[in-house]
Amino acid sequence: MASPTPAAHHPLSIDMSDLQQKQSTEQEFHLKNQSAKWVLNSPDPPGFGQHMFDMIKKNVCPQRNSIPSSASLSPKKQPLSSHVIALLTCVFPVLDWGRNYKASKFKKDLIAGLTLASLSIPQSIGYAALANLDPQYGLYGSVVPPLIYSVMGTSRELAIGPVAVVSLLISSMISKLVDPTVDPVSYRKLVFTTTFFAGCFQALFGLLRLGFLIDFLSHAAIVGFMAGAAIVIGLQQLKSLLGISHFTTKTDVLSVLEAVAKSFHTTWYPLNFVLGCSFLIFILITRFIGKRNTKLFWLPAISPVISVILSTLIVYLTRADEHGIKIIKHFKGGLNPSSVSQLEFNGPHLGETAKIGFVCAIIALTEAVAVGRSFASINGYNLDGNKEMLAMGCMNIAGSMSSCYVATGSFSRTAVNFSAGCQSTVSNIVMAITVFISLQLLTKLLYYTPLAILASIILSALPGLIDYNEAYHIWKVDKMDFLACAGAFFGVLFASVEIGLLVAVGVSFGRLILNSIRPGMEELGRLPGTDIFCDKAQYPGVLDVPGVFIIRLNSGSFCFANASPIKERITRWATKENEKEEGNKPTNGIILDMSSVMSIDSSGIIALEEIHKKLLLRNIHLAITNPRWKVIHKLKLAGFVDKVGTDCIFLTVNEAVDACLSSRSIDNCL
Amino acid sequence: MASPTPAAHHPLSIDMSDLQQKQSTEQEFHLKNQSAKWVLNSPDPPGFGQHMFDMIKKNVCPQRNSIPSSASLSPKKQPLSSHVIALLTCVFPVLDWGRNYKASKFKKDLIAGLTLASLSIPQSIGYAALANLDPQYGLYGSVVPPLIYSVMGTSRELAIGPVAVVSLLISSMISKLVDPTVDPVSYRKLVFTTTFFAGCFQALFGLLRLGFLIDFLSHAAIVGFMAGAAIVIGLQQLKSLLGISHFTTKTDVLSVLEAVAKSFHTTWYPLNFVLGCSFLIFILITRFIGKRNTKLFWLPAISPVISVILSTLIVYLTRADEHGIKIIKHFKGGLNPSSVSQLEFNGPHLGETAKIGFVCAIIALTEAVAVGRSFASINGYNLDGNKEMLAMGCMNIAGSMSSCYVATGSFSRTAVNFSAGCQSTVSNIVMAITVFISLQLLTKLLYYTPLAILASIILSALPGLIDYNEAYHIWKVDKMDFLACAGAFFGVLFASVEIGLLVAVGVSFGRLILNSIRPGMEELGRLPGTDIFCDKAQYPGVLDVPGVFIIRLNSGSFCFANASPIKERITRWATKENEKEEGNKPTNGIILDMSSVMSIDSSGIIALEEIHKKLLLRNIHLAITNPRWKVIHKLKLAGFVDKVGTDCIFLTVNEAVDACLSSRSIDNCL
Repeated sequence: MASPTPAAHHPLSIDMSDLQQKQSTEQEFHLKNQSAKWVLNSPDPPGFGQHMFDMIKKNVCPQRNSIPSSASLSPKKQPLSSHVIALLTCVFPVLDWGRNYKASKFKKDLIAGLTLASLSIPQSIGYAALANLDPQYGLYGSVVPPLIYSVMGTSRELAIGPVAVVSLLISSMISKLVDPTVDPVSYRKLVFTTTFFAGCFQALFGLLRLGFLIDFLSHAAIVGFMAGAAIVIGLQQLKSLLGISHFTTKTDVLSVLEAVAKSFHTTWYPLNFVLGCSFLIFILITRFIGKRNTKLFWLPAISPVISVILSTLIVYLTRADEHGIKIIKHFKGGLNPSSVSQLEFNGPHLGETAKIGFVCAIIALTEAVAVGRSFASINGYNLDGNKEMLAMGCMNIAGSMSSCYVATGSFSRTAVNFSAGCQSTVSNIVMAITVFISLQLLTKLLYYTPLAILASIILSALPGLIDYNEAYHIWKVDKMDFLACAGAFFGVLFASVEIGLLVAVGVSFGRLILNSIRPGMEELGRLPGTDIFCDKAQYPGVLDVPGVFIIRLNSGSFCFANASPIKERITRWATKENEKEEGNKPTNGIILDMSSVMSIDSSGIIALEEIHKKLLLRNIHLAITNPRWKVIHKLKLAGFVDKVGTDCIFLTVNEAVDACLSSRSIDNCL
Repeated sequence: MASPTPAAHHPLSIDMSDLQQKQSTEQEFHLKNQSAKWVLNSPDPPGFGQHMFDMIKKNVCPQRNSIPSSASLSPKKQPLSSHVIALLTCVFPVLDWGRNYKASKFKKDLIAGLTLASLSIPQSIGYAALANLDPQYGLYGSVVPPLIYSVMGTSRELAIGPVAVVSLLISSMISKLVDPTVDPVSYRKLVFTTTFFAGCFQALFGLLRLGFLIDFLSHAAIVGFMAGAAIVIGLQQLKSLLGISHFTTKTDVLSVLEAVAKSFHTTWYPLNFVLGCSFLIFILITRFIGKRNTKLFWLPAISPVISVILSTLIVYLTRADEHGIKIIKHFKGGLNPSSVSQLEFNGPHLGETAKIGFVCAIIALTEAVAVGRSFASINGYNLDGNKEMLAMGCMNIAGSMSSCYVATGSFSRTAVNFSAGCQSTVSNIVMAITVFISLQLLTKLLYYTPLAILASIILSALPGLIDYNEAYHIWKVDKMDFLACAGAFFGVLFASVEIGLLVAVGVSFGRLILNSIRPGMEELGRLPGTDIFCDKAQYPGVLDVPGVFIIRLNSGSFCFANASPIKERITRWATKENEKEEGNKPTNGIILDMSSVMSIDSSGIIALEEIHKKLLLRNIHLAITNPRWKVIHKLKLAGFVDKVGTDCIFLTVNEAVDACLSSRSIDNCL
C-alpha cells in the first residue's frame, strides 16, 4: 500500500533525482519546517463534551434534509402552520405522494394487491400455526399493520404481514415461558405484550435515529441465521405434514428429529404426507413456470390459494378428515377484536417479554430494511431507515392492540408485489381490505382446509431464505466472516434461535476487537523512481533506504491492548540492528508512520515515550510522521511533543527520510 | 493530517504548476496506469490458515533471540549437550550471570538484603493479617518464593514477597466462600489452592507467551484500581487501629464504615489508636528525612522494624495487653511446613478458586512486571516478560506447596532494594535467609507485638499506591481513559474488587469497539502549493479541488457495524451536491481514500458496490485510492475490481484527482 508520502517528485526527476536532490535540499528543509508547523499548529479537535453533544444532536434531532424537499422550501420564513404540515408530511409520507396519485396507478395497485392477498391469506394462516396461534391471528396481522404502514412507510414495494422467521422466534422463545398447548390464553397474552414491546423498541429506534443498531447483525450473520431458521422452520412443518399429534416445543434439529422418530412408533397418518407433498410439487412447478415465463408471474402467486381451495374441496367431498387428515377446524371470523386488555405489564414474565420483544424488533427490522432497500435500489430511490423504523413501530404497537403479532416486510410477498407491478403502498391497502373481507365471509369455508397444505405453502417459501451462493461467496472472500455465518447457522440448528444470534454477534464483535488490537506493523520502502513509500510485503519491488528503518503502525488504536508488544518489537529490532550493523552502516533513524492511527490512549503515549528513550540510548533518531488530529492533540496535551522536540514530527515519510539522511551526513562529518 | 498522496511535486513547481501540469499530463497518465498495476498485481497476503499457523508458532515456540547471546553462538553446529545448557540458561538466568558474580557485588547485595529483610518482616506479618491468615504465613511467603525467583527471574531489583493488593484480593474473594473466623482451616486450604492455580496460570502465560494478557488492564485502569485498593486496604486497618473485635468481611467503603460506626457503640480501645498513630507518625517522619537526605535511605527502611521492636517492648514492659491493646499472640515459628496435602482439587469451590487464582495471577503479574520494567529501564536493560511470568508461576506453585500464599514483586520493597544498592537477585536470597532465621529464633519475641503497629506499617506503605498526578494527567489528556480510571476506582471502593476490575476492563474494551466502528470520515483538501492532501478540519488552510469530493475513511475496519452509515452519508452527500450544483459546476468524482482501512468484510464490500451503483446513476465517478493489502485482496476476490473496472483504483489521491479532472475536461468537450 502506498504510504502517506506526498513528495518532491517531478515527472522529469525520475532519472535525475540525485542531481536535483542536492540542489533542492535547502528548499526541502524549508518545506519540512513548514509542514511540521502545519502538524503542530492545527486547531484543537472538538473536546469530549462537544463531541458527545454533537453526537446526541445528530442522532436525536431530525435533520433538515430528512423533510421532503417539496414541503421544506425555505422553512425559516414559513408560518407555524406550514411547519406542522411539514412535520405531518414527514411522519405520513402519504400526504406527499398521495397528491399525485392517479387512477392509472390505482389500476396497477389493485391488481398487485389482489395477487398479494391470494398469497397472503394461506401464508398468514400457516405462519400463525408456526407461531402456535389460531389461524385467524395470522389474518388479523395482514389487516391492521399493512393499513398503518401504507400511510407511514416510505417503501413502495414492501408487503407487510406475519413472516416465517419472526413467527419461529415468537413460538420458540415464548413457548419456553408458557406452554401454548397447556395454556393458550396466557401464551396469547405474552405474544401481544411482546408485540407491543417490539413496536415500542422499533418506534424508539426510529425516533432516536438508532438505525445503526440493526447493522450489528453483519451480512454474513444474517445469511447464516436465515438459512438455519429456514431449516428449523421446515422441520417444524413435519408435524403437520406427517399428521403427528404430540410434538416437541423445542426447535433444535435433534429434538425435532427425536420427536419425529418417536411418532413413527406410535401414530402418524401417511395421507397427510401424500396430500402435502402433491400440492408442494404443484406449487414448485407453478413457480418454475413463472420463472421461465415472466408474463405468468401471477401463476406462482395464486398457486397457494388454488391449493387451499382444491385441497379443502377434496377433504370436504371425501370426508378425509375422518381418515386421519388433520384440518384447521377452529377458525373465528369477523373484525380484529381489541386486545388492549390482554397486554400484561405486571406479570412475572415482563422482563422476558421485553427481551423477546427486543430480539423480534431487531430481526423484523433487519428483514424489512434489507428487503425494502434492495427493491428501492432497483427502482432508484432511497429508503429512510429511521422513518421505516418509526412506521414499523407504530404498526406493531397498533397491531398489539388489535390481536396481531409482530408483522414486518416479507421477502417472498414483496417480490410478488413487485412483479405484480405495484406502484405505491396502496397495494397493501387493497390486500388488507381483501383479507378483511375474507375474514368476514370465507372463514367458515376454511374449516376443512388440511394442515398439510399450510405446511407445504410454508415449505415452498423457504428455499428463498437459503442463499448457498452467498455463503460460498463469503467463504471465498473472508474466512472469519464465514465463521460468523456458520456460527449463526449451526447455533440456530443445534442449539436455539437466540444462541445462534448470540454466536453470530459474538464472532463479529470478537473479530472487530482482535482486528483493532492486533499489534500490526509493516516495513515501508521507497517505490523505485518515486517518493512514494509502500509496504514491503504488498509491493515486493520497493527499495530500502539505507540506514533508515520505516515502519507504519497498522491498527486504528495505539492503546493499552497493543502498545507494549509494538514497543517491544521496535526496541528489539533496534537492539538487533544496532548489534548487527555495528561499524558498517549504523542505523540512523526509525521513522514511525502514524497515518493509520486514529486514537491513542495514555498507555500508548507512555509506550511512545519509552520507545523514544530507548532509541535515544542507542543514538537512533525517532521520527513520527503524519499523526492524525486527535493523536497530535493528545501528544501535545501529554507533553510528549515538548519532550521529544518538535523536529521529530513530520507531515510525510519523505520529509522524515530526508531529515534522517541529512542528519547522518552531518554526523559523519563530525 | 497528511494524506497518502505522493505526488508530482517538484520544488520549483509551486508557482508554475499550471504550466507544468499540461506538459506532464501524458507522463502522469503513464504513472497512473503503472501505479494502479502496482496496486492490482501485488502478491496475495498469507491466507487464513497460514496466518493462524504463524500466530501460534510465534506465540508458542520460543524464539532464537530469547536465548542469551553468550550461549547461543551458532547453535546449529553445537552438540545436544550445549542445547541442553542453552535451555537451562534460558530457564535459569542465574547460570548466566552467576559466572561473573564477584565478591564486591555480594557485599552490596548483603547490605541490600539485610535492609530489605528489616522492612519485609513487619510488612509480611501485616499483609498476612490483611489476608486473614496467621502472621507466620506472611513470613513463609518471604522465604520460598524469593529463593526460587532468584534463580529464575531476570530482574535484578525486584523484591519478592506478599503484597498488599493481592492480600486484599485473597481475603475479599475467598472470605465469600468460607468465613475465615468460623473455619480457618478450610479457608487456608482454599488460599493454598488459589495460590497453586495462580502459579499454574502464570507459568502457562509464560510458556505460551501470552504476555499480552496482562496488557488488557490499561494504564488508566491500573491507576484507578490501585488507588481504590489502597483506600480499601487503609480502611481495613481501622480494625486493628481501633482494636475492634467484630468486623465485616466485606471490603466496600459503606460496609466498613458501618462496621466501624457500630463498634463505636460497643467496645473499642483508644490505646490501640494512640499507639498505632504515634508509630505511623514516626515512620512518616523517617521517610521524610530519608527523602530529604538520600544518604539516610536506610532510615525509612528500618523504621518499621524499629517500631515493632519498640512497641513490643513497651507492651511487654507495661503489660498493656491487659488494658485492651490487641497483640499478635499466636505465632508459630520454624521451617515452612509442607502444604501439599492441603491443596484441594475435588472440593465444592474448585471452579471459584480457579477463577480467583486467575484474577490474582493477572494482578500479581501486572504489579511485578510494571515495577520490574520501570527499574529495568532505569538501569538500561530489558525485562523478558515471558520469562518473568514463568519464574513467578514456578515460585507460586512451589509456594503453594510450602504454606505460602500468592507472592509477587512489591512496589515499596523493590524501591528500598534499589536504593540500598542491590546488584542482583542475591539480595533476595539474603533476605529469604534472614527471614528464615527470624522464623527460627525470633517468633517467640513477637508474641507481644501490638496489631496496631502492623496496621500503621501497612498504612505507611499505601500513599505510594495512590498516584494523584497521574490521574490528573489522564484526565487532562483523555477523558474516556479517565472514565476507565474512575470506574475502577469507584468500583473497588463502593462495590468490590472484582467489580472494579470488570468495570475498568469493560470501559477500556467498550471504547475500543466504539472507536473501531465509528463511521468516521473526513474531507480532504489540497495543501496550498503542494500535492499533499490533508484533512480540512485539521488543516484549515487546505484548498478544495473544484468538482472533486475527496473523503478518507477514518476507521480501521470497513465492516458490518459502520458500512451502512458511511454508505448513506456518501450517497446523501452526492444527491445533495448534485442538486445544488446542477448546471453550475457538476461534481465529477468522489475519491474514497482507503489508506486507513485495514480490513473489510462482506458487508463492507456490499456497501462499496452499492455506493458505486448509486454514484453511477448520478453520473459521478468513484475512485478508490490506496487500498491496503488485505482490502485489495478481498476486493479482487469478491469480484468488486472486475465490476467497477481497474481504472477506478489508484495508488494515490493525487493521481485520482488528476484522472477525475482530465475525465471532466473530456466530458466537457463531448
